[in-house]
Amino acid sequence: MTYADLNRAELTALKVDLEEELGRYRARDLSLNMARGKPSSEQLDLSIDMLKLLDTREECFSETGLDCRNYGGLEGIDEARRVMAVLLDDDMHNVVVGGNSSLTLMYNSVGRYYDFGARGSKPWRKYDQIKWICPVPGYDRHFAITEYFGFENIPVPLREDGPDMDEVERIVASDDRVKGIWCVPKYSNPSGVTYSDEVVNRLGHLKCAAHDFRIFWDNAYSVHHLYDEPEKQDQLLDISGPCHDSGNPNRYVKFASTSKITIAGAGIAAFASSPDNVAEFKERMGIATIGGDKINQLRHARFLKDADGVRAQMEKHAALLRPKFELVERKLSDNLTGVGGCTWTHPRGGYFVSFNAPEGTAKRIVQLAKQEGVVLTDAGSTWPGGNDPYDSNIRIAPSLPPIEELDVALDVFCACVKMVYISKLLEER
Amino acid sequence: MTYADLNRAELTALKVDLEEELGRYRARDLSLNMARGKPSSEQLDLSIDMLKLLDTREECFSETGLDCRNYGGLEGIDEARRVMAVLLDDDMHNVVVGGNSSLTLMYNSVGRYYDFGARGSKPWRKYDQIKWICPVPGYDRHFAITEYFGFENIPVPLREDGPDMDEVERIVASDDRVKGIWCVPKYSNPSGVTYSDEVVNRLGHLKCAAHDFRIFWDNAYSVHHLYDEPEKQDQLLDISGPCHDSGNPNRYVKFASTSKITIAGAGIAAFASSPDNVAEFKERMGIATIGGDKINQLRHARFLKDADGVRAQMEKHAALLRPKFELVERKLSDNLTGVGGCTWTHPRGGYFVSFNAPEGTAKRIVQLAKQEGVVLTDAGSTWPGGNDPYDSNIRIAPSLPPIEELDVALDVFCACVKMVYISKLLEER
Repeated sequence: MTYADLNRAELTALKVDLEEELGRYRARDLSLNMARGKPSSEQLDLSIDMLKLLDTREECFSETGLDCRNYGGLEGIDEARRVMAVLLDDDMHNVVVGGNSSLTLMYNSVGRYYDFGARGSKPWRKYDQIKWICPVPGYDRHFAITEYFGFENIPVPLREDGPDMDEVERIVASDDRVKGIWCVPKYSNPSGVTYSDEVVNRLGHLKCAAHDFRIFWDNAYSVHHLYDEPEKQDQLLDISGPCHDSGNPNRYVKFASTSKITIAGAGIAAFASSPDNVAEFKERMGIATIGGDKINQLRHARFLKDADGVRAQMEKHAALLRPKFELVERKLSDNLTGVGGCTWTHPRGGYFVSFNAPEGTAKRIVQLAKQEGVVLTDAGSTWPGGNDPYDSNIRIAPSLPPIEELDVALDVFCACVKMVYISKLLEER
Repeated sequence: MTYADLNRAELTALKVDLEEELGRYRARDLSLNMARGKPSSEQLDLSIDMLKLLDTREECFSETGLDCRNYGGLEGIDEARRVMAVLLDDDMHNVVVGGNSSLTLMYNSVGRYYDFGARGSKPWRKYDQIKWICPVPGYDRHFAITEYFGFENIPVPLREDGPDMDEVERIVASDDRVKGIWCVPKYSNPSGVTYSDEVVNRLGHLKCAAHDFRIFWDNAYSVHHLYDEPEKQDQLLDISGPCHDSGNPNRYVKFASTSKITIAGAGIAAFASSPDNVAEFKERMGIATIGGDKINQLRHARFLKDADGVRAQMEKHAALLRPKFELVERKLSDNLTGVGGCTWTHPRGGYFVSFNAPEGTAKRIVQLAKQEGVVLTDAGSTWPGGNDPYDSNIRIAPSLPPIEELDVALDVFCACVKMVYISKLLEER
């Protein structure tokens, strides 16, 4: 028995109750935000000791004796490359450390391929139309990059185990203008799914018309588990092995950052790929910079230390994030189970819950929630061009607000979902 | 009476003495470096107190109450924009703060114009050949950027008062594929000259065939005086006024960084331009990043404070650099005045002395100095493509070595200049 089964009178009665409930929230003049995947103040506090490091001249030297204050060191200092290799599931020699933004590294990678090609291939700017595969729901800032370069973003469904590989295989097979795919392979933004080994293997073994096809592997949430127990953590097969095994060793470029490990705006980002791609990347990077901020690299390396240090830090984040995600699950489950037409994901890591409202209601839900003082990510933003053809997907970002605010925000959200759905059902009767 | 006036026997006698002198240096197994414009350890120590700032949560908030640890703030925090406006001789509202490298901001500016055009103009990638004016001697990393994009770098003589403007005016007048010029307008790299008001005015009033011509104004040494007395400091007219007055308000893009003010590898860089250009820059920047490292911005703003704070800091640098530049002048003057065919600049700021050896000897001088244990910037590097048609110019960078090492390095350098010149004269007899 769901809302769709109710008659007009029953729906109208529910609507009256909901109007009363929303009126109570409105009286509180709320200003709550579940829009962006920002860490909370408490999470940022976890790294305050990092800022206390490197206060003297002597502390500014790397393990190889380099004065990290001066120019140089294009690829980053060894200790930082080693820490970033943990996040990138790779060897430090395949890692190059950049500035504070992995998004910038991704933009630059697309841009360099566009301007100059990939390892001798025809520069992508010379094609009439480049195409790019975008698993949906996905990350709006990814889609914005390829859209900005004028590429055609092709949505492909993201399933529980990763992108719909039948569809991906079909798209790449015959058109050499299909040059890449955006992947957030672990605890994906926003659905929280992790690609299965089979999907990763199929990605590595894709038969592409374009010999310069590139898998953009944004491992933004590689260590961002919500639970400390290994059996409650997702495991991801690294993409490098399947690419190598299939004879396409240069097909992938991997990205990660410490933005959601240390300090969101002042972290370090890194790139990893095959030796050939790293050489190309470094040559091109060397035209645009003398090197990244090695002082911040050294701070990070001293603070995080190694895989164990990263794990310990992430367990502290998890302790703050877990109650929030569990609250989302509980609230949605308590409030929306009987409604019908609503589904949502149950991630074990990452920063988001992906919510699917009844078709044709997402925009109105986000709009209504905003009126009631709860800001959500724009409906549609998880689709290329902001265009969700089902008008259904809404990204819930529970990390930023304090849990007592999140509690209220979720009540408002659930009331809005019900209200809009009921209104729609009534309009259709 | 110079070397050219000596007969074969006299030259041979001098050569024997020089061989003995160089032999003495060789016995010391020197390893000295005058190659790159890096600050010395003592200069880096001047900013060690900056690293001690921001050790607690409370200190991480900007003057507008922003938590600088979190994401956001594309254009930079106000206090950092204000400090960078001092270096850029502009209003803070025209300033956007980037990462640690002004070179990256310049690369990105060229790259965005190449990919997307300038304020609606035809993207430069769509031309068969873009051309770019390169005042010589100039900065190798500038030339490398435009060369990498396949532009034709056109050398134009840099005179005592700036680029040869007759030549510049001629080049831009009829060819709309001439899209820009590299300028280090104050204490230029490597000659140390500062553009005169007349040159700046003529730049602003250029009649360009290309309506999207851009003056790249790299004000890298805007406050980098060697002397504290205002009458011993160069003054530069800002480019924005002449561009505005001539009806070309969007013709310039300005760049600066704190690399040679605070910490070379961990400074902050900034961009300034007209409101229209800033809007375009921010839109494009927003695709590639959520924002720069605001923690480092705040550190810099708290440390440098304002124009007076910048001046005080630069006077400390000058106290360390001045003796080195005076030593260069004294050594060159003492050793090379009677040689003939050698000229050099006498900068009042910046990081370099530009040395012109007798034509056809620069490569051999740098090669010989290297053999004797003194590394210099590659001969030719101050010309586009590394190709100095006179094989004459050598960039001397005295900032990095301790003064006692610089003393020896200059002795070796002068001996090498004389040795190579004598050898050449003997070969020609």
